[in-house]
This record gives sequence, structure tokens and C-alpha cells, in this order.
Amino acid sequence: MTRPKILLDPHPRPLASIFNAATRKRLDALGDFITHEGSRMPDAMVDAHIADVDLVIGQTRLHADRLVKAKKLRAIIDVETNFTDAIDYDYCFRNGIHVLTPGAAFADAVAESALGMAIDLARGITAADRKMRHGSESYGLDGNVDSFHLMGSAVGLVGYGDLARSLHRLIAPFNCPIKAYDPWVPDYLMQRNGVAPASLDEVLSTSKVIFVFAGVTAENQGFLGRREFGLIRPGSAFLLMSRAAVVDFPVFLEFVGKGRFRAATDVFPVEPVPQGDPVRSIEGLLLSAHRTGGMPEALFDIGRQTVADAELILKGLPPVVCRKAQRETVSRLRSKPIDKT
Amino acid sequence: MTRPKILLDPHPRPLASIFNAATRKRLDALGDFITHEGSRMPDAMVDAHIADVDLVIGQTRLHADRLVKAKKLRAIIDVETNFTDAIDYDYCFRNGIHVLTPGAAFADAVAESALGMAIDLARGITAADRKMRHGSESYGLDGNVDSFHLMGSAVGLVGYGDLARSLHRLIAPFNCPIKAYDPWVPDYLMQRNGVAPASLDEVLSTSKVIFVFAGVTAENQGFLGRREFGLIRPGSAFLLMSRAAVVDFPVFLEFVGKGRFRAATDVFPVEPVPQGDPVRSIEGLLLSAHRTGGMPEALFDIGRQTVADAELILKGLPPVVCRKAQRETVSRLRSKPIDKT
Amino acid sequence: MTRPKILLDPHPRPLASIFNAATRKRLDALGDFITHEGSRMPDAMVDAHIADVDLVIGQTRLHADRLVKAKKLRAIIDVETNFTDAIDYDYCFRNGIHVLTPGAAFADAVAESALGMAIDLARGITAADRKMRHGSESYGLDGNVDSFHLMGSAVGLVGYGDLARSLHRLIAPFNCPIKAYDPWVPDYLMQRNGVAPASLDEVLSTSKVIFVFAGVTAENQGFLGRREFGLIRPGSAFLLMSRAAVVDFPVFLEFVGKGRFRAATDVFPVEPVPQGDPVRSIEGLLLSAHRTGGMPEALFDIGRQTVADAELILKGLPPVVCRKAQRETVSRLRSKPIDKT
Amino acid sequence: MTRPKILLDPHPRPLASIFNAATRKRLDALGDFITHEGSRMPDAMVDAHIADVDLVIGQTRLHADRLVKAKKLRAIIDVETNFTDAIDYDYCFRNGIHVLTPGAAFADAVAESALGMAIDLARGITAADRKMRHGSESYGLDGNVDSFHLMGSAVGLVGYGDLARSLHRLIAPFNCPIKAYDPWVPDYLMQRNGVAPASLDEVLSTSKVIFVFAGVTAENQGFLGRREFGLIRPGSAFLLMSRAAVVDFPVFLEFVGKGRFRAATDVFPVEPVPQGDPVRSIEGLLLSAHRTGGMPEALFDIGRQTVADAELILKGLPPVVCRKAQRETVSRLRSKPIDKT
Repeated sequence: MTRPKILLDPHPRPLASIFNAATRKRLDALGDFITHEGSRMPDAMVDAHIADVDLVIGQTRLHADRLVKAKKLRAIIDVETNFTDAIDYDYCFRNGIHVLTPGAAFADAVAESALGMAIDLARGITAADRKMRHGSESYGLDGNVDSFHLMGSAVGLVGYGDLARSLHRLIAPFNCPIKAYDPWVPDYLMQRNGVAPASLDEVLSTSKVIFVFAGVTAENQGFLGRREFGLIRPGSAFLLMSRAAVVDFPVFLEFVGKGRFRAATDVFPVEPVPQGDPVRSIEGLLLSAHRTGGMPEALFDIGRQTVADAELILKGLPPVVCRKAQRETVSRLRSKPIDKT
Repeated sequence: MTRPKILLDPHPRPLASIFNAATRKRLDALGDFITHEGSRMPDAMVDAHIADVDLVIGQTRLHADRLVKAKKLRAIIDVETNFTDAIDYDYCFRNGIHVLTPGAAFADAVAESALGMAIDLARGITAADRKMRHGSESYGLDGNVDSFHLMGSAVGLVGYGDLARSLHRLIAPFNCPIKAYDPWVPDYLMQRNGVAPASLDEVLSTSKVIFVFAGVTAENQGFLGRREFGLIRPGSAFLLMSRAAVVDFPVFLEFVGKGRFRAATDVFPVEPVPQGDPVRSIEGLLLSAHRTGGMPEALFDIGRQTVADAELILKGLPPVVCRKAQRETVSRLRSKPIDKT
Repeated sequence: MTRPKILLDPHPRPLASIFNAATRKRLDALGDFITHEGSRMPDAMVDAHIADVDLVIGQTRLHADRLVKAKKLRAIIDVETNFTDAIDYDYCFRNGIHVLTPGAAFADAVAESALGMAIDLARGITAADRKMRHGSESYGLDGNVDSFHLMGSAVGLVGYGDLARSLHRLIAPFNCPIKAYDPWVPDYLMQRNGVAPASLDEVLSTSKVIFVFAGVTAENQGFLGRREFGLIRPGSAFLLMSRAAVVDFPVFLEFVGKGRFRAATDVFPVEPVPQGDPVRSIEGLLLSAHRTGGMPEALFDIGRQTVADAELILKGLPPVVCRKAQRETVSRLRSKPIDKT
Repeated sequence: MTRPKILLDPHPRPLASIFNAATRKRLDALGDFITHEGSRMPDAMVDAHIADVDLVIGQTRLHADRLVKAKKLRAIIDVETNFTDAIDYDYCFRNGIHVLTPGAAFADAVAESALGMAIDLARGITAADRKMRHGSESYGLDGNVDSFHLMGSAVGLVGYGDLARSLHRLIAPFNCPIKAYDPWVPDYLMQRNGVAPASLDEVLSTSKVIFVFAGVTAENQGFLGRREFGLIRPGSAFLLMSRAAVVDFPVFLEFVGKGRFRAATDVFPVEPVPQGDPVRSIEGLLLSAHRTGGMPEALFDIGRQTVADAELILKGLPPVVCRKAQRETVSRLRSKPIDKT
């Protein structure tokens, strides 16, 4: 029996960043590799091997002209973790080639940080540290005038995908009633998980703590604007954990700046944020430089998910770990990455 | 049947701070009240009523001279939440008078904050916010050089009382292996709760995140000193959540200042901390002005616990909610308060 | 320092039944022992040593005449697990002698069985096995005409002590709304645990599955009688897990026999049940010969609890594991054992 | 905009058995229906409408000759819950037609019963009831000679699909170490769920309680035979919850009959089991007439899952609730149903 051939083209991720030693060993055992690191694999190199390849790991350009030659190809796993224009998805769907991404690898890292930030906003942790450094702190009860317990507070989730579900697991002991809005997830699934399905307006207007996990699609850019921010109850906490493009960012900053609600954000319309940008000094805003997902452990999980599904696929079984590109939605997601780096 | 007589002497806590409307209504239904607010109840007022009183709620002075007259007294509930020298405990033990304090009322508030601070130290939340305000932030992976996941990290608890157990409930979904040191709690109880009993040295030397919840007793002042801090692994996180007196504070600051480990503290040897105290500018220290416990909701829980046990006691049943003064330990606790605010 | 003296008088339990090897080793390390097995320790033997004893483990007769000589005695731990007339409790309370029993050792064993029996009644497991042995089974949907899901069903607890709390932990993933009735437990504690406090009538009339865990006291014999059984909704499941004396047993059997509700019982007014007793052939009754608690593992837990508290007591610390005799309730419990063998 | 057309052909399930009132209302709102009940929809009726149909709900014959006319068809949802030969799967895969089945609807019903039966085998519940009816019961400890605690026992899962995961959720508070064998599920997924992946031999030889949830495939018939049963430790409990064909049934009965291990089975090679079949009188076997899954509530869940995905599909979104037929495995599953009832 011939060993499978695997094209390994992980750029922009160094292999060592996504495969730890144990995972690398399992990867190496899968077959024979055509590997290129440090840049996108050169076209000539791809073309020389594509006809023999069982599996592509990477963001290799795979339009129809190449795919027609890839008679043995069973799956493409994008370890950069986005569904980009590099692939002819329709060809893949018609020909039974799985297109996968281990994007959920970031979910636990983001969720842990999101919970920490939610407690921070509720209890004023960073703000109180700053006051103490400035010599303006208050002690005990006086220091908690604006604090509230996260425990028992009404939580709202905008987006109920992998990030939200990881957060939900972590926040479970806080006994918070949880509502979620996600037009791609049926009530049935939310209710099974103990979450109340709700409209966006209901989530915004009835929650004390609002987590935004919704990725950007072709349709939802800026869907949180002046009208929506106006629905949020004064004194609530709003955490933007996904993409800056889902909010009208200037309006968002206006509301936080006026103290209408407190907020945390991990994302900004332009990154790095320009020096001197007023966002850097808003008192009620907890600032995070797009760093909630990018943890070494999360990257190693990209490798683990990749190998787990690769092992199944090469045994002739369907993948069950990575996200699958879906005929109905891939074009809506394609325009912009939805996952955290 | 005559209605019970209750002496209500809540100073230094205003009644409205510990009894919300619903609890106050249940309290009022319990009997007839002799009430004094705004200062300690005057001696004459206590003496005029003590012979008829079934229950004392407060920190009223109750030495033997008064207690011998209190023939009907069944319980004393100290709503300031400390066992102080105001009471002749031996007399109470001999005569079946319960001495109680709803000190666990602060446990959830402290635990929620402690978890938030632990995530903060692990993921660098406050430090990253500060860097972004100073214009020196790093993005993505580069911003997480010193970060680690709390999920799965080895957790050590110094003290396994109410605070630790509340923290344990909240941290359960993080799948952290947990060790605890508490000379007053048997292995049996820890193991039943899924915690590994350990020596102090083992907790310090093997944990990535160390929570100190131990109260001050006559015997343990400064028990965390140079030798003990030396056992903590570099890069760990240390959270002081109980009393400053359990650590050698200057040595503690020395270790954190040198970057040996990162830390958070809610308590200080002198409060308020003097302006200009160098503690205010230690980079690796998360500062909290004795505010993790003093939440309005925690104070209302003092009232709820008080009424719950008072209702039982006046029905001739034993109290089951508040902490009970114990013959063996009350004198060790008495010298100094062990509860938060 | 002299080693503590411990009087070990475990009858009617053989030492080997309550102390496994590991626990026995810890026990032996506690001090010097005066031990008698196989029968109650002879009076002369007790009298010869009582003046020097720090701790009694057993159901030794300790009336005032003996206790006055027991100047060093700090605690009595009854490993038969009942508070009997053998002890002068008032003397103990006045003199700070703890009277303890590791009765909660049976809680997990009873709870596991209770959950199994509840699923059995809901889903008809034993009844369906019997039908199949008799050749009268029905398949699939037809075999489930009288079945209901325990998951999501309204659960009622009569008694909210150790047994009920163990059951509550095991049944948590079934997402059942739970109400409890227990006049000795305040609403506060139930609500903290996620249980709705309710009157006995409400528990009986609104629950689909009713667990009776209440022990017998001086006051509650036969408190579940014709009126109470009449409140139970047709088709419900009723599980008697504590003592036969809390129900009017003939009336109970009448209701089950008529098919008014289905039931399980672990206890009977006379044990062993006479041969030919009609209780043995009631179709809707799941029969258990007082065997839900008496598991070897539960008995070893008696030993573990005993040693855990003995260790604390001999170090001068208060016990925290065993149940403590309480001034207010011990006389009500004393008349009859409340724990499972 | 034209309303979607839905072909509703639910035979052999009556509509009222799978759609409760609330679900039926949501179903009816989805579009215009071509409905046939009581038998398979006549060919002429299917042919008359297939060209206009957006969705088929049922086990309608859909070979290539029909599918080529079904230009608008987006999905087929088989509410009988098996992937049968009625469909040309390759055509569907190539043309982006989802083939779905709400088979996981039975998972909770089976899991609840499986847990009840596992406690039954561990604690001897049905056997003890039978003894008491026969007048041969033993009381207390004597009645538990063969009993063991499920709590803490080593659990093995053969098959880690929906049934196993539901069981896992229910058994979580029992603190059992769990191993699982499933060649279609990667280690990664099991480990994330807190289950240790293991070989079949390891699961069989190291578990005290073994649940068989594996469905029948083209490859695994009779994979539990003499060699495998020989690996099971004496005194263990073995529960057959999926299909009789996965075990060598006579050998299975031989082992149970000799008392080598105790067992429960919900399935039999021939159903109904013939009168007089010796299986009906094996002492150590808990008998269940294929009734663990077929609960009314489980059937209504078929309806809910169907409507949840139908709503998504008709909005142009991918289904996320039902199981999807997979190119790699559907032919292996097709030969025989794998779901209950």
C-alpha cells in the first residue's frame, strides 16, 4: 500500500508554532510530505506534486485549474484558520473534497480572557488598580460604588458559536441567566444548552453583561450602531471579542466615553492603534491589543485539530473536529476572516 | 405565648446596609425589638433589657456580669462578623448560648474577584491595558510572551475555608488540578471535594497559581516569609486575598518587585496605604484597595444569614447557616478579625 | 508529652467492617487504645479507664455518674451512628464534650440507590424485566405506555439533610426543577443550593417524583398519611428511603396497590418482612430489603469520618466532619435511630 | 417570493407521534405541503411534485431517476432515522443536497435508561426485588454481598457517539474514570471531553461497568465474541444498548448464564423474543424489550430537530442539528439501521 502524500504549506504560521513535539510526531507518521516554510509554497512546487497529493495543509491557492489535476485530493485544512478566496469551493463541494479549518482552536483562550474581562468590568479591577497607582483609591464599600456581581447577572451573547459555547462552559457556576442572539443557530440548540434564544434587541436591552462573539460576514458589518447601543441599559458591561467591523466603532466609543456603559475591546478598526488615538485614554474602556486568542497553547491546538482530522480522513473516515466550509455560508465568510489570530 | 425579645445593636453597620427590604420584613416578624443605631447601644439600655432578651444581634459587650442576668438568651449573632473580646465565650459554651457570625457572607464576593484577578495575572489583562494607555502595547502573540492559560494550570489554596470553597466552585470548569493546605481541615473533607491535601511547602512549590485565603490567628502571623516565597516557582501568580499579617509584607514586595512572581493583593499592612508608598508603583502587582469583599450584595447576605438562623433558634432549632464560635478556636481568632470588611 | 488514651468500644460493628487497612493505620497512630470487640465493653473495663480517656469511640454507656470521672474526655464518636439514651447529653454540652456520629457516611450509598430506583420507576425497568420473564412484554413504544422521563420531571424532596444533598448532586444533570420540604433547614440554604423551599403539601401535590429522606423524630411519626397520599398526583413516583415510621404504612400500600402512584421502599414496619406478607406481591411497588445504605464502602466511610475528626480533636481543634449532637434536637432524635444501617 | 414546497412522507411514523402541537405549528409555517400519511407516499404523487420540491421529510425513494428532476431540492430529512437504500447518496453529495436524520433524538432516552440499568446491576435493584417477591431476600449488609458502588467505578464505553455522550453527561457526578473505544472518533475529541481513549481490549479488561453503544456497520458485526467476553473482569457489569448484531449473542448469554459477569440488554437477535426462549430466565441478565429509546418525548424530539434544520435550510443556511449522511460512511451504515426503534 502506498503511503499518503501530504502537501504542507503552513505559511504564515511557522510549523513549530502550531505543532508541538507530540503532535508533530503524529503528523509525521501520516505519510510522505512535500513541505515549504517561510513563504507561500512556490507555484512550481505545488504544480509538480498536486496530482499525487491526498491532503493539503495550508492556505495554498487551489482554484479549479489546479483542482482538476488533484484527482486524489480528499481534504484541504487551512491552518491560518480562515476560508479565503484561495480555493474554488464549489469544485470542492461537487467533488467531495473537505475544506476545513481548525478555527475553534482559539475558543478557550478567548473565552478565558472574556470571562476575566467581564469580572474586571463588573468589579472594577483594572480601574481600581489604576486609581491606586494614581493615589485616588477608595477602600471597602466606598471603592465599590459602581461595582456589581457578575454572579447572577443577566448575560447576553451576540453570536452563539464556538467562542460563546466556551464562555458558556466557563461561566456556568456564576448562575447567570443567559440569552443569545445568533441567526445561524436554531432555538433548539440554544435551549438544549440552557440558553434562551432572543432577538438582538432583547439581548441588548435586557442584559447586564453583553459579549459580542459574532464574526464578520458579508451582511453584518456595523450591525451594532447608534440604535443598538441606545438599547443597552446604563451601567451595563459590553465586551467586543470578535471583530471591530461588527460595530460602528466611533459611536461605540462615544457611548463608552460618555459613561453610558462600560466596555472592553480586543479589536480596533486599525491595528496597531495609532499613537495618540483618543481610544487609548477612555476611562471606562478596558483595552486589549488583539491578544485574547493568540496564545501559544491555542496555536498548538490548531496542530492537534489538524492531525486529528487528517488521521480520520486518511483512514477513509469523515473529519469531526475542524469546522467545515459549508456551501451556504462560505461565500459570506470568505470576504473577511472571522477568527482571532 | 409571649413574643421573643431581640436586642438589635448592629453598630458599626447601618441596619439598611445589611437588611434589604425583604429580609427586614422577615426580621421584623421575629419578635419585639430593642434597637439602637448609629453607635454602640448605651450600657444603660442594654442593662435595662438584657434579662428579657432571647437573642442579641450585634457586637454588644456581653461579659459574664451581664450574661448571668441574661437567663433567656439563646444566641448572639455578630453582624460585624468577627469574634471579638466583647463576649465571655466560656460562659456561652457552658450555658448553651450560640455565638454566631455570618462571616461567610463575603465568600462569593471575594471568590468572584479572586478568579477575575487570577485570570488577570495569567493573561496580563490589567498590565496590557496599562501598556496600551502608555502606547507601548504589543499585538497578538507578541503581546502574550508572559501569558499563560489559567485553564489546566496547577492551583494551590492556602486555607480551605468558605472563601476557598467558593473559589473552588467558580474555578471548576477550568479543569485545574487543585492542592490545598489548611491545618484545620482534614484530608477527608478536601478529598471529598476533589482537592488534594498538601503541605504548605508542596502547595507553594508546585502551583502555578496560589490563592491565600487563610485568616490571621494567634499562631500564623507572617507565616509566609522569605523561605516560603523562595519556594514559589518563577513566573507563578500569587494572590493575597485575606489579611496582610499572614505574609512578611516587605519580603513579599521584594519578590514581586524583582519579577520573581506576579501577584495581586487586596490587603495592606496599613490602610489606607500612604501616598507615595512604593507599593503603588510595583509593575507586577495588581492592586486592590481592600474591596473584594465589601459589596452591597455581600452585606445583604449578612442580613439573610442572620435572619435564617434567628428563625431557627427562635423555633427551638439549632442554627445551621452562620459560623459558630468554637471552644477550641475562638481564642485564637479573637485577637484579630479574620473576615473581610 | 503523654499520648492520648482512646477507649474503642465499637460494638455492634466489628472493627474490620468500619476501618479499612489505611484508615486503621491512621487510627492506630492517634494514641494508646483500650479496646473491646464482640460485645459492649464490660462496665468494669470502662470504669477502670474512663478517668484517663481523651476520646471514646463507640456506643459506650456514659451517664453522668461516669462522665464526672472523665475529666479528660473531649469527644464521644458513636460509630453505630445513632444518638441513643446511652449518653447524658446535657452533661456533655455543659462540659464541652463533643458528641458525634458519622451518620452521613451512608448518604452516597443511599443516594445512588435512590437515583437508580427513581429511574426504575420512571422508566419501568424492574417491571419490564418481570414482564419479560413472564412472557408478557411489549416492545418499543408499546412497552413505554406508562413510562416517563426522569430528565426534566418535577422532583420533590421530603427532608433536606445529607441524603437529600447527595441525591441532589447525583441528579443535577437531569435538569429537574427541585422543591424541598424540611422544617429544620432554612429557605436560605435551600435557595443557595438551587432548591425551592416548599410546604409539605406543595411538594406532594406538584412533584412527579417524590423522595422521602426524613428521619423519624419524636414529632413526625406517621406524618405521611391518607390526607398526604391523597395529594400526590396520579402516576407519580414515590420513594421511601428513610424510615417506615414516617408513613402510615397500610395506607401507603393501599394507594400503591390501587395503582394511584408507583413507589419504591427500602424500609418496612417489621423487618424481616413476614413470609406471605401481601407487600411482597404489590405490582407497582419496587421492593428493597433495607439494603440501600449498608454497603461495605459506606461502612469504611464511618471509619474515615471517625479518624478525620479524632485527629482534629486530639490536636485541639474542633471536629468538622461528623454530625454533632445538638442541644435543641438530640432529645427528639434520641428515641429512635434515624440513620440507615 | 414563492413559498417553499415540502414533501411530507413520514411513514412509518404517524405525524402526530413526531410533531407535538408547538412543533407542528412551526412546521406548518415553513411552506406549502404535499403530505401523505399511513403508508409510503404513492409513486405517482411523488413524481407529480418532485420537480417543485425544496425539501423532503420522510423515507421517500429518491434514486437518481427522480433526483435529476428535483432541481430545487435542498435536503432530505429521514424521520424514521436511518440512512437506507432509498436514496442515491452520491447524487446528493455531488449536487449539494443534504441528507439528514434526527437520530440523536433517542440519545437522552437511551442514556437515562442505561444509567438506571447500570445502577441496577451495580446495586442489584431488580434482582433484590425479585428475591423479595420470592421470599428469599437478605437484609442490610447481607443483601449487598455482590453489590458495588457505581460511584467511582471504572467505566468503559464501546462507541462514543451521541448515546455515549448523553450517558457521559448524566454519569458525570458519579466521578467514574471513563475510557472509550471508538475507531471513528479521534483521541482529541475524547480527551477534550474528559474521556481516556483506549483500545477495545483495554476497555473490556479494565472496566467495572461496560456500556455498548456502538451501532452496526458493514464491518463490525459480532465484533464482541468469545475472545472479547473473556477479557471482561469477573463481577463486572455489561450493558448492551445498541444492536444485538454487534455481539455473538449465544456466547454472550453463555458468559452471563455462568455468572462470569452480570449484564443488561435492550436488544435481541430476534424480536419479539420467542416464548420459552431460555434468555427469559437467565438470573444475572436484566431484560428490556427494546424499549430504552422509544419514548414519546424522544419521538417529539425527532420533530423538533427536523423543524430546526428545515428552518435553517429554507433560509439558505446549513443545517446544524441532525446527523448528516457522510460520503465516507453512509454506505457502511446503510446496510442496517443503527438507531433505536
